[in-house]
Amino acid sequence: MGYNLRMAFRLTPHERGFYPLFTRAAENIVRAADDLALLVAAAPEDRPPLATRVKDAENAGDEVTHEILVKLNQTFVTPFDREDIYRLTSSLDDVVDFMEEAADRIVLYRLEELPPGMRTQVDVLRRAAAATAEAMPRLATMAELREYWVHVNSLEDEGDVAYRALLADLLAPPEGAPALDVLTILKLKEVVEVLEEAADAFEHVANTVESIAVKES
Amino acid sequence: MGYNLRMAFRLTPHERGFYPLFTRAAENIVRAADDLALLVAAAPEDRPPLATRVKDAENAGDEVTHEILVKLNQTFVTPFDREDIYRLTSSLDDVVDFMEEAADRIVLYRLEELPPGMRTQVDVLRRAAAATAEAMPRLATMAELREYWVHVNSLEDEGDVAYRALLADLLAPPEGAPALDVLTILKLKEVVEVLEEAADAFEHVANTVESIAVKES
Amino acid sequence: MGYNLRMAFRLTPHERGFYPLFTRAAENIVRAADDLALLVAAAPEDRPPLATRVKDAENAGDEVTHEILVKLNQTFVTPFDREDIYRLTSSLDDVVDFMEEAADRIVLYRLEELPPGMRTQVDVLRRAAAATAEAMPRLATMAELREYWVHVNSLEDEGDVAYRALLADLLAPPEGAPALDVLTILKLKEVVEVLEEAADAFEHVANTVESIAVKES
Repeated sequence: MGYNLRMAFRLTPHERGFYPLFTRAAENIVRAADDLALLVAAAPEDRPPLATRVKDAENAGDEVTHEILVKLNQTFVTPFDREDIYRLTSSLDDVVDFMEEAADRIVLYRLEELPPGMRTQVDVLRRAAAATAEAMPRLATMAELREYWVHVNSLEDEGDVAYRALLADLLAPPEGAPALDVLTILKLKEVVEVLEEAADAFEHVANTVESIAVKES
Repeated sequence: MGYNLRMAFRLTPHERGFYPLFTRAAENIVRAADDLALLVAAAPEDRPPLATRVKDAENAGDEVTHEILVKLNQTFVTPFDREDIYRLTSSLDDVVDFMEEAADRIVLYRLEELPPGMRTQVDVLRRAAAATAEAMPRLATMAELREYWVHVNSLEDEGDVAYRALLADLLAPPEGAPALDVLTILKLKEVVEVLEEAADAFEHVANTVESIAVKES
Repeated sequence: MGYNLRMAFRLTPHERGFYPLFTRAAENIVRAADDLALLVAAAPEDRPPLATRVKDAENAGDEVTHEILVKLNQTFVTPFDREDIYRLTSSLDDVVDFMEEAADRIVLYRLEELPPGMRTQVDVLRRAAAATAEAMPRLATMAELREYWVHVNSLEDEGDVAYRALLADLLAPPEGAPALDVLTILKLKEVVEVLEEAADAFEHVANTVESIAVKES
């Protein structure tokens, strides 16, 4: 009576199976962000094994993505629009892809010293990862999701400030700063940019959750 | 009889409230484009206050975005798909974000002389802004929207030509052109690219309007 | 009985008219990819006419895009969601746009020798083009589409490996490699990046087909 069909179906075990998968995807992102944070704080010779760990997280993420899509194919009644499940899944996937690309570039370009602002960028990613992992299980009840997306949006602003300052320091170094050669500037720019893409990807996840919640409300 | 339910609802004051908000968002974009045009024509020392004005426009844009999303949450019957309202809102938001980023970069990188082609890029943005501001109120009646999106698409082509020529002049300067140092080339490239993103964002707005109109037709 | 309304309508000549248009768009992409492959293998002086041919393919693509959108406007019952037709059309359009941009940049930047990895990138594009052209007619029956998108996804992985290696060789050249001047590095980077965007665009086409198939299943 008071409840709609979709809410009723939400109780069936089959379709509830999506939530643990989203949670697993987000926990995997937490792992990737933690290893990326270790990597940007590590000495150059200690970075390759940490990049491998981020790569492992990316592979684990691909598996969860695949599991969700298989489940989507097999499920008749989904907890929310098929397209939204699809979009949420692929935006979670993007996050870990960008993190892996950042780790890979740092190692592949044989970068030595990293600018401190890059640690700020990664710290923003870690906090966004934690917020996302906490929010995913709440999709089941649509509870307190607003706090989550407001928080991720403000983290993205913080990341954007760090990103702009880093780019400005690379391209227009403040007086007295050590002069970097142009190739080093280009390499650092590539890393800084892909970290910013990871922050944007977290915002896409949050926006997708917001649009799901808006439809359900 | 002749009209469908949605058209009937379109007359209710509550849901009609979306159109003035889209119009306000677009008028704000006009303001940002005007200030950006002043900025690229100004002497370096006159640019910072103009960049602040573009930033103000971005903040005003964020407020309109927020108002639209709050309204979306409170409105049961929307003038078109919730998702389309969402997409239109966020693509209008993107336009002003990219403009603000361009203004910020010009000041932050302490650029001196700007290539004339950059003024062409900004001129395209101004015309796209004007076309968008004129089109938004017509969403209420879906009148003459086709002219609008055809126009914005052709402006985007024009912007693309300017963008490609600028990049080519920076990376493969024509004989006899004054040689720029590599860091200046990189800085100008960052500005030119984000202006091109603003032009693309106008096209996304137009594409969203087109897809709304296609559904309604 | 056993079939739904949409399947029944799928037999009407009018709406079946979409499939040949998607196929034409994809065959046009094959043409563009073939000419691009000739271009990257050609001597610098032989490249401009080949870039013109890629540009012709882009124009032909724009015409097909336009025909599909006009048809979409005139068709009451579409073979799948209007929005999916729209998205498929625009992602097919993106592919040829990026290819044209790559060809244009190679000529415009007056590049001389191209790194061998760039041919690998273009070879991936050719194979993705062939796979896409074979898949488009199968949209009519939704047969064997899974093989197609799995294949394109694995091609995109292959392209990504080539892209990363190229970027690393440009920014952190292996010992003993001929030193390139920074402007040449920047020019090659612009080409390599837009070729990667073309590979990504093929993946978007495949993802759109996948999401259409998922809805229909």
